[in-house]
Amino acid sequence: MKNFSIAKSRRLRSTPYTSRIEEQGVTAYTIYNHMLLPAAFGSIENSYHHLKEHVQIWDVAAERQVEISGKDSAELVQLMTCRDLSKSKDGRCYYCPIIDDNAGLINDPVVLRLNENKWWISIADTDVILFAKGLAIGNNFDVKIKEPNVDIFAVQGPKSFMLMEKVFGEKITKLKFFGFDYFDFGGAKHLIAQSGWSKQGGYEIYVENTEAGLKLYDHLFEIGKEFNVKPGCPNLIERIESGLLSHGNDMDNGDNPYECGFDKYINIDNDINFLGKEKLKEIKLQGIKKKLMGVKLDIDKISITGSLDLTDQDSNVIGELRSACYSPHFKKVIGIAMMKKSHWDIDQDLKVKINGDICSGKVCDLPFI
Amino acid sequence: MKNFSIAKSRRLRSTPYTSRIEEQGVTAYTIYNHMLLPAAFGSIENSYHHLKEHVQIWDVAAERQVEISGKDSAELVQLMTCRDLSKSKDGRCYYCPIIDDNAGLINDPVVLRLNENKWWISIADTDVILFAKGLAIGNNFDVKIKEPNVDIFAVQGPKSFMLMEKVFGEKITKLKFFGFDYFDFGGAKHLIAQSGWSKQGGYEIYVENTEAGLKLYDHLFEIGKEFNVKPGCPNLIERIESGLLSHGNDMDNGDNPYECGFDKYINIDNDINFLGKEKLKEIKLQGIKKKLMGVKLDIDKISITGSLDLTDQDSNVIGELRSACYSPHFKKVIGIAMMKKSHWDIDQDLKVKINGDICSGKVCDLPFI
Repeated sequence: MKNFSIAKSRRLRSTPYTSRIEEQGVTAYTIYNHMLLPAAFGSIENSYHHLKEHVQIWDVAAERQVEISGKDSAELVQLMTCRDLSKSKDGRCYYCPIIDDNAGLINDPVVLRLNENKWWISIADTDVILFAKGLAIGNNFDVKIKEPNVDIFAVQGPKSFMLMEKVFGEKITKLKFFGFDYFDFGGAKHLIAQSGWSKQGGYEIYVENTEAGLKLYDHLFEIGKEFNVKPGCPNLIERIESGLLSHGNDMDNGDNPYECGFDKYINIDNDINFLGKEKLKEIKLQGIKKKLMGVKLDIDKISITGSLDLTDQDSNVIGELRSACYSPHFKKVIGIAMMKKSHWDIDQDLKVKINGDICSGKVCDLPFI
Repeated sequence: MKNFSIAKSRRLRSTPYTSRIEEQGVTAYTIYNHMLLPAAFGSIENSYHHLKEHVQIWDVAAERQVEISGKDSAELVQLMTCRDLSKSKDGRCYYCPIIDDNAGLINDPVVLRLNENKWWISIADTDVILFAKGLAIGNNFDVKIKEPNVDIFAVQGPKSFMLMEKVFGEKITKLKFFGFDYFDFGGAKHLIAQSGWSKQGGYEIYVENTEAGLKLYDHLFEIGKEFNVKPGCPNLIERIESGLLSHGNDMDNGDNPYECGFDKYINIDNDINFLGKEKLKEIKLQGIKKKLMGVKLDIDKISITGSLDLTDQDSNVIGELRSACYSPHFKKVIGIAMMKKSHWDIDQDLKVKINGDICSGKVCDLPFI
C-alpha cells in the first residue's frame, strides 16, 4: 500500500512524549481522540516479537480521560453504561460499553472509580465528553465534567513487571489486574493501573504532573536496558491475535453490545438505570442476527483500510471483515469480522476479494489465542 | 519537518472519493471527524496559486452532517447555538457557533435548514452528534438524530462558477452565497450550496446518491479541462490569508465566541433559549481578556504542530500562535494567534522562539486580505 504523510497541526494534538518518540524512531501515526497516537516504529512484526518477549514503553496519551465529579456523578456514569456499577469499588478499573438510547455502541472505555464522587472514563476514539455534557445539562445533574491534564504512557510486555518493580519496589507487583493505586517516583505521585492495550501484561501510568512523568519515562528507558526495553505502541498483530477489540475498527454505533460479545458487561435484570436498557431487553428477546467472530484467510499479507465483504461459494455476502493482519503465530492472515447468523459455524468456508483476487478462508472463534 | 506516515484503518474512514484522489496525486492527509481529509497534492504553495486563479475539486466528505429532524428539532438546534435562528429560512446556510453551558466553543458548523423540521449541521471536527443525543435524551425531545449518508465534494476557485454553469446551466449562477437548492445531473438530484472552505468562491455538493455523485465528480474533471481544473483540498495558506478560522486549530473549548470575533453570531438580547446564554451575558458585561488576531513574522517558513508562545521584549507571554504559514502575498509568515488584552494594538511588536531561534513580528487585524 502507498504511504501518505500525516499533515500535522495544532488540531491533531501532540503529547508530552511526542518529541521523545520522534527521536526514538516512530514512523507512523494514527489519530485518536484528536491526538497523535504512534502506530509503528519500523516493522510491526519485529515490534510484535519484541513485545511478546521483552518490555516496551508506549505513548498512549491519546487515551483521554473524561472526569466526572460531584454529587450526581455515579448516577451519570451509570446512565451511560449497561454494566452494573452499583457494587464498584474505589481503586478499580471497569471495562464499560457506553451505548445510546438505541443500544448502539458509542465507546468502550475503561472506567476508573477514584471515589464515589469522582470518576475517570478512559475513552476510545469518540468525544464521550460531549455525550456526558449533553446528558448532564438535559438532566440537570449536579456534576462537573472536564478533560483533566492526564497523559498516559504504558509499560507493556512480560518483563514490564520486573522493570516496574525495579522502580517502585515489591508493592507494585501486588497490584491486581485492573486495580490501580498511587506510587511515588522522585517526589511525585502517579496513578498506576495494571492494565493496557495488550495481553502481554503491564501497567498504565496516568501522568498528571507532566514534568515528573517525563522524568519517569526517561528513567524507565535508562534502567530498562537489562530487560531490553524499547519504545513501542499498540500493536496491530498482537491485539488481533489476542482478540482485543478496537472501537471504530471492529465495532461502531451501528452495533449493539450483544453483537460484540459483551454479554458479561450487560446487566438488564436488576433495577439500575441506564440508556438503552429497554432496547437491550428487546434485542435479547429477539436474539441478535450478527456477531463479531474471527476469520483465518489462506494468504500471507493484507492491508485493511475499510470493511471488506465476506461471501459464500455463491457470492452471497455473509459477513464483513473489519480488521486483519498477517499473524506470525498462525502463518496466515487473521481478522475480526461481523458475521451474519447464518454463518456462525466454526470452520465455515468463506471467500473475500482483495485487490481483484479471490482468497478463501474459514470462520473461527475469538480470541484466536 | 520530518514526515510520518498515516496508519490507515477502518476507524479512519475513507470517502467515496479516496481511491480517485489517490490516483490523482494526494500526498498528505489529515483526520477530520474520524475520516480521511486530503491535506496536500504536492506543493501547498503551487496549489494555493492554482486555487486563486482556476478551479479545484475537493474531497471534503469529512464535513459530516448531523441530521436533526422531528417536532422538536428547531428547539434542539437553537439550544445548541448562540445565533438566533428564529427567523431562519428553508434553503439557507447559517454559520453557527455551538457552545456548552460554560460558553466554551464545541464546534463552529454551518447549519442548513432543509425545512422547519429537518436540519443538517455540517460540522467541524468534534462529535456534535453525541452532544445532540445527550441533550435530546436529557430533555426528552421528540427528535431523530443521525449521521446521514452524505459525502460532500466542493468545487472552489474563481472559475468554479463557469464550470458549474456548464453542467447545471444558468440556474446555478443565481444561487446566492450560503443559499442552497437541488440540481439535477444524469437523473439524480443533488443538494448544492454556494459555500466552501475558501474565499475564492464556489460550491459544495452534498452527495446522498454515492454512484451519481461519483459520475458528477468524474464529469467535472472531464469538462473542466478548459478551466484548468485540478484536484485540491482546503489550502492552509489561502485559509489563513482569508482569515477562515479552523476549530481545533485556532479555537477550542477553552475559548468563547466573543474571543473568536463571532459577535455578529451571538444574540443575547432577545428571548431565544440556548445553552451558555447567561454565561455570555456575564462575559459581555465583564469584557473579554483575550481574542484572536493576526500576526506577521519576519521569517519565510514555519511549521506549526501546536501552540507557540508569543512574547514581548521582556519575554513575558502576550499571546499564543495557533496556526501559521508562509504567505506568498505578504512575502513573510502570517498566523492566527490568541492575544492577551494588553497587546491588542495593531503593529505591536512581538517575538517568538522557533527551533531555538528568536523571530520578531507584529500584531495585525484579521482577515489579512
